Amino acid sequence: MITSLEYVNPRVRAIRVSKQTFLQSLAHQIPQDVTEQKPFKGVIDVSSGDPHRAGMKPISFVRQALAVCLYPHLLQDNAFPLDVKLRAQRLLQICEGESLGSYTASSGLHHVRQTIADFITKRDAGISANPKNIFISSGAQRALMVVVKLLSGGEGLTQTGILAPQPCPHTLPPLLDEAGVLAVPYRLMEDRGWALDLNQLRQALESSRGRCNPRALYISNPGNPTGHVQDRKSIQEVIQLAAAEKLLLMVDEMYQDSVYGQNTEFLSYKRVLFEMGREFSETVELVSFHSLSCATVAECGLRAGYMEAVNMDPDVLKVFDTMLCTDISAPTTGQLALDLMLNPPEPGDPSYNTHAQELLSTRTALTQNAERALEVLNDLPGFSCQPAMGGIYLYPRVELPAEIQEQAEILGLEADVFYCQKLLEEEGLLLGAGGPSGEAGSYHLRLRVLAPMDVLEDALQRLSVFHLHLMGHHKDTGRKGKGETGCSSKSGLTCVVQPTTV
Amino acid sequence: MITSLEYVNPRVRAIRVSKQTFLQSLAHQIPQDVTEQKPFKGVIDVSSGDPHRAGMKPISFVRQALAVCLYPHLLQDNAFPLDVKLRAQRLLQICEGESLGSYTASSGLHHVRQTIADFITKRDAGISANPKNIFISSGAQRALMVVVKLLSGGEGLTQTGILAPQPCPHTLPPLLDEAGVLAVPYRLMEDRGWALDLNQLRQALESSRGRCNPRALYISNPGNPTGHVQDRKSIQEVIQLAAAEKLLLMVDEMYQDSVYGQNTEFLSYKRVLFEMGREFSETVELVSFHSLSCATVAECGLRAGYMEAVNMDPDVLKVFDTMLCTDISAPTTGQLALDLMLNPPEPGDPSYNTHAQELLSTRTALTQNAERALEVLNDLPGFSCQPAMGGIYLYPRVELPAEIQEQAEILGLEADVFYCQKLLEEEGLLLGAGGPSGEAGSYHLRLRVLAPMDVLEDALQRLSVFHLHLMGHHKDTGRKGKGETGCSSKSGLTCVVQPTTV
Repeated sequence: MITSLEYVNPRVRAIRVSKQTFLQSLAHQIPQDVTEQKPFKGVIDVSSGDPHRAGMKPISFVRQALAVCLYPHLLQDNAFPLDVKLRAQRLLQICEGESLGSYTASSGLHHVRQTIADFITKRDAGISANPKNIFISSGAQRALMVVVKLLSGGEGLTQTGILAPQPCPHTLPPLLDEAGVLAVPYRLMEDRGWALDLNQLRQALESSRGRCNPRALYISNPGNPTGHVQDRKSIQEVIQLAAAEKLLLMVDEMYQDSVYGQNTEFLSYKRVLFEMGREFSETVELVSFHSLSCATVAECGLRAGYMEAVNMDPDVLKVFDTMLCTDISAPTTGQLALDLMLNPPEPGDPSYNTHAQELLSTRTALTQNAERALEVLNDLPGFSCQPAMGGIYLYPRVELPAEIQEQAEILGLEADVFYCQKLLEEEGLLLGAGGPSGEAGSYHLRLRVLAPMDVLEDALQRLSVFHLHLMGHHKDTGRKGKGETGCSSKSGLTCVVQPTTV
Repeated sequence: MITSLEYVNPRVRAIRVSKQTFLQSLAHQIPQDVTEQKPFKGVIDVSSGDPHRAGMKPISFVRQALAVCLYPHLLQDNAFPLDVKLRAQRLLQICEGESLGSYTASSGLHHVRQTIADFITKRDAGISANPKNIFISSGAQRALMVVVKLLSGGEGLTQTGILAPQPCPHTLPPLLDEAGVLAVPYRLMEDRGWALDLNQLRQALESSRGRCNPRALYISNPGNPTGHVQDRKSIQEVIQLAAAEKLLLMVDEMYQDSVYGQNTEFLSYKRVLFEMGREFSETVELVSFHSLSCATVAECGLRAGYMEAVNMDPDVLKVFDTMLCTDISAPTTGQLALDLMLNPPEPGDPSYNTHAQELLSTRTALTQNAERALEVLNDLPGFSCQPAMGGIYLYPRVELPAEIQEQAEILGLEADVFYCQKLLEEEGLLLGAGGPSGEAGSYHLRLRVLAPMDVLEDALQRLSVFHLHLMGHHKDTGRKGKGETGCSSKSGLTCVVQPTTV
C-alpha cells in the first residue's frame, strides 16, 4: 500500500499516542447501557482541562453575545440584556460582511487583538502591549506549535532542544514529537510544592549541551498540572538564566485567571521582565500563551488562544503570520469569545451582576474543591498530595501495590495507566495518568478539581472506594451505606456524599 | 537574537507569503475614512472563497440551531421553529456535559461523523461510508495538511512529490511548502474549459521521477479556481493512472454542492471508483476532502471540514487520529454546523420551506452571476474567460499592457499582483492574482462570482472602469453617467448598474 505504516514519514510515525488519548478512548467505549449494569451512574471525567465536560456552566455573557452574533435576529429579542446586544452589534461590525461566516486575517481580527492588548496592559500595571505582537490561533496549542516549528531543525547534536518541566502539560510531548524537537526535561520539586529549582534547570541545560542544541525554555505558570505559582523572585531567576544562556522563554500562562493560594498573586513573566530594567526588558525574548480554555470561561470546545511575542525580530513575527496562514484563520466564534472574556461587563452594565456572580461561583467551586480534594487524597493510604496555589488540577503521588505493577507489566501497560483503566472500568471515574514519580512503585495522577462540587464529591467517593478496595481495605469504604462504623476516613467522606448506587 | 530570521528553520523560512495574503493585507489598509475620498464606497473583496464577506447571507437553519446550542435558554424562545429546537437539543446531547465548551475526540464527534457517513452514502447512490474512515478537522486545509505531512519526507531525489494541477487552489502551495513536499505541476487545458488532460498528467509524472519521489496526485473537482467539473470518463482515467502508478489520490471535492453547468452532475471520485469494479474499488487509495466553507452554507469562519479515507491501512488511520490530536479538536460550533449542513430539514419540517428557498436563492445568484460575469469579462479588451460548470470562481485570462509589466518589474511585483493592487487602490475591488498564463504578457485573475447580484454587478462595473481606463479607453466607460453613448460594452453593463459615486 502507498500509505502503509512503513512508508509514513518516520517523524510522524514517532508521534506518541498520549496516555490521555488512550484512556479517554476507553471512557468513550463505556456506553450508557453498560453503565446501567455497573455500580456507577455515568462516567465522570476529571482527567483533562475542560470543566464543562463534568458539568461546569458556561459564562452567560459570553454565550448570549455569541448566540446573538450567530443569529442577529436576536438583536430584536427582549430576552437579552442591552449590553449583550450592543456588544454583539459591535462584534458583528468587525467581521467582514458582518458575518461570522467570513475568514479573518490569519493572525486574528484586529479589534480582538486590540482587546487582548488592552487586557494585558491593564493586567501588567500599565506596561503596554501592542496588537502587532499578538497572534490569535485556534487554541494556544496551535500558537505553541508555530513557535516550536520556527525553532525546530537540525539532527543529532544540532537538533533543537527545548527545556520542558517534568511534570508538564500532557499535551506538550506529542507536540514536540511532531515538530521533531527534543524535550530536555528539568525536574520540578515535588516536596516544595512543585517549585521550579534553578539548579535543576541549570543541570538539565548543561547535560543537554552534549545531546542537542537547546534554544528555548518552556515554563508553565501557574503550573499545569502541578498548581504551583511562581513568585517574583523565582521568575526573575528564570529570566536571568534565559538572558545569560540565550534561551527563548515560552511561557504557558493559561491559568492566570485561577490563582487562589493564600498570599499568592499571578505575576506575568512579561511584567516581571519589564520591571527588571532595560538590561532585560529590551533583550530577553519571550512568548506568552493564553487561552479561551482557561479556568473561568473554559470554552475549550470553541478553540481559541493567543500568544504575545516580546522582543522578537519583526521579520520573525512575519513568519508567525505566514505560518498561521496555513490554518487560514482561527474560528470566529472562538475569537469573539476571547474578546468577551477579556473585556467583560463593567459595574453598572446590565449583565454585570450576573457575570460577577458566575465568576464568583466558579472561583468558589475551584477553591473549595481544591481544599476538599487535598484533604481526601492525603487521607487515602499510599497517597500524598501537595497543595496547589492555582490552576485547575491536583497532582497526587500514589504508591501502587506490587500486584498492580505486575499485572500492568503483563498487559504491556504502564502501571499508572493500568490503575486509571481499572478505576474507569470499576467506578466510572477517569483520572489522568501522570507517569512514574522516579521512585520505584510510585506514580502520579492528575485530577481536575474544577467541577461542580457534587460531581467532585462523587469523584472523590469513587476514587476512595476503588483505592481502598484495591489496598484490601474494601470493607472500610462507604459503599455499604452512610455512617458505617468501619469508615476509616478522617475526612468523613461517606457522610457527605450519597453512595451513587444501591 | 535567538529567533532572528537566520536561525529560523529553513523550511519554515521557505514558506512563501501568498499573493492572496499580500493583497488582502493591502485591502485591510484601506480604512473607511480613506474610501470616503475615493471614487468607491467600501472595498469589494471577491478574491477568496468566503461569500459572506461580500454579503451572501448565512443559512438560517444552521445559524438558529447553533445559537440555541450556544445559549440553551433559547429552547424556551418562541422565535425558533420546533425542528430547530429538537435538533439543537439532540446536538447538545452529543456534546460532553451538554456544552459546546467541551473538547471532542480529536477526529470529531462520533454523531457528526455518522451524519457525514450517511450523507456520503446517500450522495453515492448507496455505496456505504463508515464513520471510522471519516476525520473531522478545523477546516479541510488542516485535514489536507495531515495527509501531506504523513507522506512527506526525503530529500533531493527521495523528497516526496505531489502532483498538483496548474492552476490550483491558492492555499495549496504554502501548505506544500510548510510540509516540505515538492509540488509537481500538471497543466490543465484552458482552451478545453480547464479540463484535465491525461497526457499532461503522465508527462508531469514522468518528468518528476528524476527529481523527486511522486507519491500522490492532488485533484480539485469541481475545479478551484477553474470551475471545470470532471465527467465519469475523465475520473475513471485518473483512477486508472493512480492505480497503475501507485499514487494516493487526494481529491478536493469542496465545491460538490455547486455544480451548475448544463448536463453536468457532480460525481464523487469514491463513487466512480466503486463503480469500476473490485480491481479498483478494493485497491486504489483515496482521500476526499469536503468543508463547511463550501458554496451554499459557506461558513468559512466557523472552521470545519472533513476527509474520508478509502482503502487506507487502518494503522495509518490511527496516525491521522494521533496527528489531529495535536490540534486537540476541531471547534464544536464548526462540527455541529457540519451536522446541520449535511442533514438539513426535510419536506414537512417547519424549517423546510425557508431552507429550500435560501438554498435556491444562493444557487440562483451563483448561476446567474457566473453567466453575467462571463459575458462582461469576455467583452473587456484583452480578457478571455472560459465558462465554468461549477465551483464559485471564474478564472479569466488577461493580456496586460507592457507599461503595467514594466512598472510591476520596477516595483519587484508580479504583473498580475500589481494589476490587482492598482485595481484595489483605484476602484476598491479585490480580485485574486492567478499568475502568468505561460504566454508572455498574459496572466490570470480569480473572481468569486458567488456574491449578492448587486454586489457582483458593482464589482464588474469597477473592473470594467478600471480596465478600460488602463487600456486607454477611459472615455468610453460608464463612470460619467448612465447610457452615455460612448459606452463600448456589448453587454450593456452601464445600463444595469448605478455608478457607485458621483
